[in-house]
Amino acid sequence: MANSEFEYVRKFEEWDALAPSNWIVVRIDGRGFSKFSKRQSFAKPNDRRAIDLMNAAAVEVVKQFTDIVIAYGQSDEYSFVLHEDCQLFERRAAKLATSISTAFSVEYCMQWDKYFPGQALERPFPTFDGRCVLYPKKKILRDYLSWRQADCHVNNLYNTTFWNMVKGNPATETPPMTTTEAELALKGTFSADKNEILFKKFNINYNAEDEIWKKGSVVYRKFEDKQTTEAATSGNQIVKPADDHEKKKPKSKTQLEKERKRKQKARVVVEHVDIIKDKFWQENPWILE
Amino acid sequence: MANSEFEYVRKFEEWDALAPSNWIVVRIDGRGFSKFSKRQSFAKPNDRRAIDLMNAAAVEVVKQFTDIVIAYGQSDEYSFVLHEDCQLFERRAAKLATSISTAFSVEYCMQWDKYFPGQALERPFPTFDGRCVLYPKKKILRDYLSWRQADCHVNNLYNTTFWNMVKGNPATETPPMTTTEAELALKGTFSADKNEILFKKFNINYNAEDEIWKKGSVVYRKFEDKQTTEAATSGNQIVKPADDHEKKKPKSKTQLEKERKRKQKARVVVEHVDIIKDKFWQENPWILE
Amino acid sequence: MANSEFEYVRKFEEWDALAPSNWIVVRIDGRGFSKFSKRQSFAKPNDRRAIDLMNAAAVEVVKQFTDIVIAYGQSDEYSFVLHEDCQLFERRAAKLATSISTAFSVEYCMQWDKYFPGQALERPFPTFDGRCVLYPKKKILRDYLSWRQADCHVNNLYNTTFWNMVKGNPATETPPMTTTEAELALKGTFSADKNEILFKKFNINYNAEDEIWKKGSVVYRKFEDKQTTEAATSGNQIVKPADDHEKKKPKSKTQLEKERKRKQKARVVVEHVDIIKDKFWQENPWILE
Amino acid sequence: MANSEFEYVRKFEEWDALAPSNWIVVRIDGRGFSKFSKRQSFAKPNDRRAIDLMNAAAVEVVKQFTDIVIAYGQSDEYSFVLHEDCQLFERRAAKLATSISTAFSVEYCMQWDKYFPGQALERPFPTFDGRCVLYPKKKILRDYLSWRQADCHVNNLYNTTFWNMVKGNPATETPPMTTTEAELALKGTFSADKNEILFKKFNINYNAEDEIWKKGSVVYRKFEDKQTTEAATSGNQIVKPADDHEKKKPKSKTQLEKERKRKQKARVVVEHVDIIKDKFWQENPWILE
Repeated sequence: MANSEFEYVRKFEEWDALAPSNWIVVRIDGRGFSKFSKRQSFAKPNDRRAIDLMNAAAVEVVKQFTDIVIAYGQSDEYSFVLHEDCQLFERRAAKLATSISTAFSVEYCMQWDKYFPGQALERPFPTFDGRCVLYPKKKILRDYLSWRQADCHVNNLYNTTFWNMVKGNPATETPPMTTTEAELALKGTFSADKNEILFKKFNINYNAEDEIWKKGSVVYRKFEDKQTTEAATSGNQIVKPADDHEKKKPKSKTQLEKERKRKQKARVVVEHVDIIKDKFWQENPWILE
Repeated sequence: MANSEFEYVRKFEEWDALAPSNWIVVRIDGRGFSKFSKRQSFAKPNDRRAIDLMNAAAVEVVKQFTDIVIAYGQSDEYSFVLHEDCQLFERRAAKLATSISTAFSVEYCMQWDKYFPGQALERPFPTFDGRCVLYPKKKILRDYLSWRQADCHVNNLYNTTFWNMVKGNPATETPPMTTTEAELALKGTFSADKNEILFKKFNINYNAEDEIWKKGSVVYRKFEDKQTTEAATSGNQIVKPADDHEKKKPKSKTQLEKERKRKQKARVVVEHVDIIKDKFWQENPWILE
Repeated sequence: MANSEFEYVRKFEEWDALAPSNWIVVRIDGRGFSKFSKRQSFAKPNDRRAIDLMNAAAVEVVKQFTDIVIAYGQSDEYSFVLHEDCQLFERRAAKLATSISTAFSVEYCMQWDKYFPGQALERPFPTFDGRCVLYPKKKILRDYLSWRQADCHVNNLYNTTFWNMVKGNPATETPPMTTTEAELALKGTFSADKNEILFKKFNINYNAEDEIWKKGSVVYRKFEDKQTTEAATSGNQIVKPADDHEKKKPKSKTQLEKERKRKQKARVVVEHVDIIKDKFWQENPWILE
Repeated sequence: MANSEFEYVRKFEEWDALAPSNWIVVRIDGRGFSKFSKRQSFAKPNDRRAIDLMNAAAVEVVKQFTDIVIAYGQSDEYSFVLHEDCQLFERRAAKLATSISTAFSVEYCMQWDKYFPGQALERPFPTFDGRCVLYPKKKILRDYLSWRQADCHVNNLYNTTFWNMVKGNPATETPPMTTTEAELALKGTFSADKNEILFKKFNINYNAEDEIWKKGSVVYRKFEDKQTTEAATSGNQIVKPADDHEKKKPKSKTQLEKERKRKQKARVVVEHVDIIKDKFWQENPWILE
């Protein structure tokens, strides 16, 4: 029973390496999460435990994969950004997508008890699908992240208004609506309209809402001590953006290993800040360098 | 802060539907499992708890995804076969690969305690990479499965001999070897040689070893009562192999839903049988029909 | 000025080999041919010189590429079928598509004078786009060819009726229509309606029309002498369809070379026959073997 | 004979649009040109008629496809560069590769008589394969072009030396070599060695050789009158490189049509200049803008 006569089937495996010099985003999404969140009675419009769990899982994934330069999450989705020069798994698409989505899914389930104590997980256990998308320029990658953050804001404003309408507010004599009624009432409204509804009927100043809901969550490595910051910056200066006219020297194995260790030591932070404007990127120039 | 100006980034997402009328195999592999199995002190050459856990996870995945027609596992890998006409997730490669690999990884971690009680999981938690491979003909799919099962046999014979040599056998005055010595001693040996070493030095008749090690594990739905079997068979007769000259009628939604329910009710079994010869397939004709 | 510092750009080239064990169809289409055929005053509904030129070009392409097992053409399109085991150019998609489409385009232009004497070609010269499509089963490949031939019939019946209406028929006092009027008049009509219009108003029995218009053109190698036929058949029996349960032996280089020479010697024929029904394939079993 | 029952075969066609915001190079290569050039007795090391024909064909292709921003050719190859924002044929890979390679092949054959009068083309007629390669950054595209031009120089220095050695030089008492001898003699030599051989034995100053052989051929649109140049420049300023932080406005249909017409009117030039250094690109800034 030799396996040689069957080995020809290997020819059917396709090589799926992603094109070089493109930023890789692995985006994961909760599978069947509208059902799952109902079954687990997530608070509406936002459940702090659920988002804290998402962020805790993301932090572990960023720690485990030092090639991830930044991650952005909101609701039941997370985007993990790999550097355009990343060589992890030889840039094989399926390997990257499944490694990150399995690591995230497992973290989510294993940490569940900590965030939802006494509330057991049942089958089907929560999992997260993933896929790789390539962005050929830094500018387009930033637009991708801006798109997700703008989407977070738009959804959150809608959901905040919607769920308040469903709950109603006796103080302003606003009766509870059915979900269908609320949906209908919000159809065609603009941001300004929703802000006004919130303010007048629910006494909510949307701008004063927690940043975590309005901005989502940004996860990245923080290099704070002067020395490390300099090392980071100078280390990264070697990897100039490809549009630069100077030549890129590929890093030596020792350099790469050193860098990996430095990254493993760095503190991974979760912040709820604007990543659409330039300020964040100017303050953390090494992230996309 | 509208998200419309950023929406152009969606154009960078590629549509990755797999070619129609091809059998889809989602093969998953334990990530870094040689390290993991050492850390968790898996028994050598085979750890029954570890394989039982693999199989328990596979059973749940087969139950959850009714499009899986059969699965085959050995060591830290599992192959899940989706029917050539499967339309799950519109046949999108990343969606299929990540859904199945995350479901399996999560099951593995969540059931760990049951199979390794008192032996905690530590980070990095075990996960399984996955990828899709297409096989255009039933015959080639069977060759793929034969390849994996032949591989199981070849590896198991090697590992059984190797680990016995490392342990040594006082009864035959066979001293323990280092792993390097054993590796060297086995270099260039044929199956017959290994069988003889096992028999003469370790009093082991390889043919009498447990089928689970020699054949690996086959997971599939069993339709036992006469009625269901007939229903299964006649139901499946509608899906004639594409090489048939009669016309295929696509199933109606009601039919598909009925079939899904029937599958959900069916008993999912784990067997350690030969799937290289025709016998298994003749006894279970509906699997690939 | 060494080129070594720039060689990294080769990494951007993707390997585009087509999946094994799939029939490859290279389909070519005239680029901008509705304009071109007007400029060159092609007869309507069909121009015999134009089709003869298409077929002459196809014959040369079939002669040049011995991996083509059959070709089917109609109007300004041609489909060239490569065997599912074809290894030409390592099955690279771009190489196959451009080799065949350039060979066809060049033949078309170089033979133009013979079919359209005294009617010079002007820029932009006629060219034919091409693309590869994979069909995983023989049955599906035949359905593809049936699709093209059924399309030929449907289009030809329409065009024959349409252009007769535009010309009108004094004998039956049928006045000429504008193209818009004819289009409108034919909207929603069935085959039977068009057959009747042709018969009653234009005294045309559609069934008696030339087969070349109704069936299109089939180009293939004819092995007529008994000996060669047997050789062909037995030669091809080595390449059993993959669904067969016997093992396939890959052909030796000598065998392949011998077969190539035999093919080069074979007569390439153009026929206007039905390839939807089984008869043609039963009479020429070696074509898809 | 409806074609509806066969239409399902269309699902096997894959959508092959190239990733947005990437420079597209369609590179064509003469198929079997070492054989062809021998059969047609091309002069060695370089045949002026053959290169003039290549360039004449390229000029027509550039004229026909206004989306081509620049082309570079040497020996029997040509690279046609399409702008990163090019939308021609919806960026479908097969369509782009076959359109350009068929247009080039046809031009080459149709203009053959002009450059090789009285020297008939025979079957197989010369054709050119093609493929698309994507370059995500302007810098990398320039490196690609530099790679081809450096390759031209390296090959030409080698070929010039090689063929002179094969011919021999009585004036310096250098006897003719066989091709095998010359090959052997040149093995392991550096540029400096070849320069010296040429100078000492063949009285050839390589630097004084014609630029057409040392640099290859650059084909592009020249906008010379002040007004047009400004229009070109300002027109192109709208299409800022994507790394720019200002927003890109997609051009209107009228703008695109106007631009196409302006391009059709522009003079297409063939130059033999350095495109590795910045000078050329600084003098013709609109090419890659």
